Amino acid sequence: MYSMGIDYGTNSVRCVVLNLESGIETGEDVSAYPSGDGGILTNGKNPYLARQNPADYHISLEKAVAGTLKKAGKDKHFSPEKIVGIGIDTTGSTPLPVDKKLVPLSFHDRFKNNENAMAYLWKDHTASDEAEEITRLAAKIRPRYLSRIGGIYSSEWFFSKLLYLARRDKEVFTSMETFMELCDYMPAVLSGITNPSDAVRSVCAAGHKAMYSDDWGGLPDENFLGKLDNSLRHVRAKLYSRAYPAGETAGYLSGKWAKRLGLPRGIPISAGAFDAHMGAVGAGVRPGVLVKVIGTSTCDMTVSPEPEAIKDIPGICGIVPGSIIPGLAGIEAGQSAVGDIFHWFVSSFMKGSGKDHGWLSSAAAKTRPGETGLIALDWQNGNRSILVDQKLTGLVLGFTLQTRPEEVYKALIEATGFGARTIIERMEEYGVEIKEIVATGGIPEKNPLLMQTYADITGRKLKIADSSQTCAVGAAMFGAVSAGREGKEGFTDILQAQKKICRFKRREYRPDVRNKKIYDRLYAMYKDLHDSFGTLKKERNLHHVMKSLIKIQAGAKNG
Amino acid sequence: MYSMGIDYGTNSVRCVVLNLESGIETGEDVSAYPSGDGGILTNGKNPYLARQNPADYHISLEKAVAGTLKKAGKDKHFSPEKIVGIGIDTTGSTPLPVDKKLVPLSFHDRFKNNENAMAYLWKDHTASDEAEEITRLAAKIRPRYLSRIGGIYSSEWFFSKLLYLARRDKEVFTSMETFMELCDYMPAVLSGITNPSDAVRSVCAAGHKAMYSDDWGGLPDENFLGKLDNSLRHVRAKLYSRAYPAGETAGYLSGKWAKRLGLPRGIPISAGAFDAHMGAVGAGVRPGVLVKVIGTSTCDMTVSPEPEAIKDIPGICGIVPGSIIPGLAGIEAGQSAVGDIFHWFVSSFMKGSGKDHGWLSSAAAKTRPGETGLIALDWQNGNRSILVDQKLTGLVLGFTLQTRPEEVYKALIEATGFGARTIIERMEEYGVEIKEIVATGGIPEKNPLLMQTYADITGRKLKIADSSQTCAVGAAMFGAVSAGREGKEGFTDILQAQKKICRFKRREYRPDVRNKKIYDRLYAMYKDLHDSFGTLKKERNLHHVMKSLIKIQAGAKNG
Repeated sequence: MYSMGIDYGTNSVRCVVLNLESGIETGEDVSAYPSGDGGILTNGKNPYLARQNPADYHISLEKAVAGTLKKAGKDKHFSPEKIVGIGIDTTGSTPLPVDKKLVPLSFHDRFKNNENAMAYLWKDHTASDEAEEITRLAAKIRPRYLSRIGGIYSSEWFFSKLLYLARRDKEVFTSMETFMELCDYMPAVLSGITNPSDAVRSVCAAGHKAMYSDDWGGLPDENFLGKLDNSLRHVRAKLYSRAYPAGETAGYLSGKWAKRLGLPRGIPISAGAFDAHMGAVGAGVRPGVLVKVIGTSTCDMTVSPEPEAIKDIPGICGIVPGSIIPGLAGIEAGQSAVGDIFHWFVSSFMKGSGKDHGWLSSAAAKTRPGETGLIALDWQNGNRSILVDQKLTGLVLGFTLQTRPEEVYKALIEATGFGARTIIERMEEYGVEIKEIVATGGIPEKNPLLMQTYADITGRKLKIADSSQTCAVGAAMFGAVSAGREGKEGFTDILQAQKKICRFKRREYRPDVRNKKIYDRLYAMYKDLHDSFGTLKKERNLHHVMKSLIKIQAGAKNG
Repeated sequence: MYSMGIDYGTNSVRCVVLNLESGIETGEDVSAYPSGDGGILTNGKNPYLARQNPADYHISLEKAVAGTLKKAGKDKHFSPEKIVGIGIDTTGSTPLPVDKKLVPLSFHDRFKNNENAMAYLWKDHTASDEAEEITRLAAKIRPRYLSRIGGIYSSEWFFSKLLYLARRDKEVFTSMETFMELCDYMPAVLSGITNPSDAVRSVCAAGHKAMYSDDWGGLPDENFLGKLDNSLRHVRAKLYSRAYPAGETAGYLSGKWAKRLGLPRGIPISAGAFDAHMGAVGAGVRPGVLVKVIGTSTCDMTVSPEPEAIKDIPGICGIVPGSIIPGLAGIEAGQSAVGDIFHWFVSSFMKGSGKDHGWLSSAAAKTRPGETGLIALDWQNGNRSILVDQKLTGLVLGFTLQTRPEEVYKALIEATGFGARTIIERMEEYGVEIKEIVATGGIPEKNPLLMQTYADITGRKLKIADSSQTCAVGAAMFGAVSAGREGKEGFTDILQAQKKICRFKRREYRPDVRNKKIYDRLYAMYKDLHDSFGTLKKERNLHHVMKSLIKIQAGAKNG
């Protein structure tokens, strides 16, 4: 049997067909969104605006599914009838206004050219003032609303965008029936649901981006919303009162869409979730395993069986029961910059030198831990976890007149490794055990030095997810779980699905005991710098830092 | 009337003839030392070895004087008979072993190929173990010996080299009559002195490099020397019991040397001193004026009329009565790296980028103070003043993903400016007023951005000495003072000489009041970093640093 995973990305939608016995991706295709600039509607007058045309979600899906089925068809065992479930993940928070029949407002003639009636892509930052207002008000009267989302409400999130819409475009706001995340919209549409209140809303989107929690009865209360803006006082009733984890069935493929996609009707469709979270599942997240998506920044995800104990881990930006795996608390943290730091260093300082990432990386690999005499703080783009403070900056310390670029490059890699360790240690302080790390994203395969360094610094084994499409694979796994619940041949739960599906690259990175010891000493210094520059807590003298680096360096050079 | 200045540098000797009425250099010539590698005897087996062939000092002097007189001869008013005095400065500590007739041991056939019989150039570092021994012993039993020289006895200095010689080459050590600084040897030789005990020893060399002070009866006591090494127990009697400031007459040009140099015999020759100190005089050092030689590192010199009050300024590496100007305390400090830091950054990080000092400097000049958001510590080569600690390293803080190389370059310049300010503030804390700064050396004329930045940071006016040969000019001024004392037409004292001779470039750098205010805020942060990383004194939280930089940066960007 097979399952289909659909992954709505920023510029395109990807589809895979997953063989549930072998775990192999039988077919796969990608289709770019036709509108705007790489699928993004922009506005020359407002650099913060990033919208998407909801029509693209339909058109590109058809193409991607057709392409996938064509490729899968080359496998003689495959036929569309063998697809037992469908799962969908999307970017987020990417909400769009829909009418009473669950039709996007932008499909109406009067709104077809109105950018405010389009989908608000996750990276639309037009609502930054609104985000600040929400943070301020919540901090004042509902601090618990911020407790599970890292303390600051972002301009990228659901209510910032809704408040923006309510104020900036009354016509759209009053014409819409509800505001809906793309990850909720697509399962409902494919299921032929025409009443928005029948659409299943994702707890992943609700909990991480819309201040939803069972602890306070769902979404923020009417009084809070009314204080934000009078026009929001009655909006809560139009939104939702309950949200569901992925794996629950959101609906069944409608006749109309079955025809459009060339699939049998009635296939169960899982409730949606965000790409990173389904990706974590595809990569093998489970209790004790941290999935780390390492790209320009990182997204760090794990799950814990004890949601009560860990409700408020300070500095961890998202803790939502069921947001990743049903029945487990989904925990999300992140480093504000990783690949971006290396890119900045190479493009700004090494341009024209002939020293690219490859050169620097292999030169850096020749120096032993501690040999550079350098230590750095990885805050070039602020610190998301565990300090939750954008107004922090990078630091490099330990320069001598002999310091070479590859040594700085290595110190920057190490700094991101120390940043990774602070997240793990904070989780463990609150009882969330991390035994190993599964890395995905653009960097892990390209940079073995980074991988080994992270293993040595964290003292954990690092594996790399075998699939480069963990999001679409994860979505397909949820499709199969939904199928299983509906009595079809699928999986009974996600843990069973993972045992069958998740594979890893042969090369693993294990901590070197000797390196780990040196990095423990360097990490202690990183923490001193971290706490002295990043918190108000500790008064300390840092005289030991340069001295210790020189000692460690001398030790490293001698053997 | 005219005076002759002779400046023994590391690779060559320079001679000038100075017109005492106009202050203009009538003639000038340089002659490279013929021996070794650029005048330096090296040893492939020992990278720390740097010696000089004393014969070079004679040969090159003849050539340089001949060239100078030839050039001066083009001025019809000049004739060698009008030279009233001769002054000599040299590198230091550069001692050499001489025999009972004041002949260098290396002139003897049996020692002519023995590198231990040569002059020990200032930058010979073969005696580093000995230097550590001396520091250790003095710290234990004679801490006051270290109190005027910055707390650490250097491998570059007189007694390290003498102890090295005593242990490593008994034959040379027992064959020599005395060990003598080049700045004492040359005036004695030119004066025809053939008894080493008649040679006038410089208080500049004695006080700064040989732990000499009237406060403890001259050189270190026999007991101390004997504890260093038994062979040194009786060496004190062969050295000297009194040292003299430059301007005192060391002798009169002998007939033999008058003939060799084409000068009249009997010209008074001033007692010698080190190049930097005579250079400070040539640049116009006086109470209230700091002369700052800015090159790869800096040498900061001033004089104070109150030697008693300022005997032990912590972290100021040399305080010696009469070492710069007779009757005033000579005060010397220094920054371990300035030009070296910029060179390191450009050669290590900007290679191939097309961004040279000129490009970076003009790009950096376009950003306002505070606009980079960066702050740095200038300790890439340790910190000579005021922390006296080689085991400190550089730091750059405030990086974002937008930080550009020219901003780092500017932060490095600013860091050296803050380093300059710490020296001035420490001097003023102890009553040594600094009203203005005269800059000399390779950098001031080349880097107006650095000069203006230093003016803005220190709040002092910066001038540039007009002559690029302030050492040789200073030596000539001391020659003229010696002449004046001998009843000839010269100067009565150095202050009179300076009024007549010292000139400055037209372009001066005055502090910009607005920039100064911003730099006061940045300097406060520099001091926090300085004290936290560089001293054991203060426990503090540095949380404010990144925050304040971001605020100052925002202010600077908005104008």
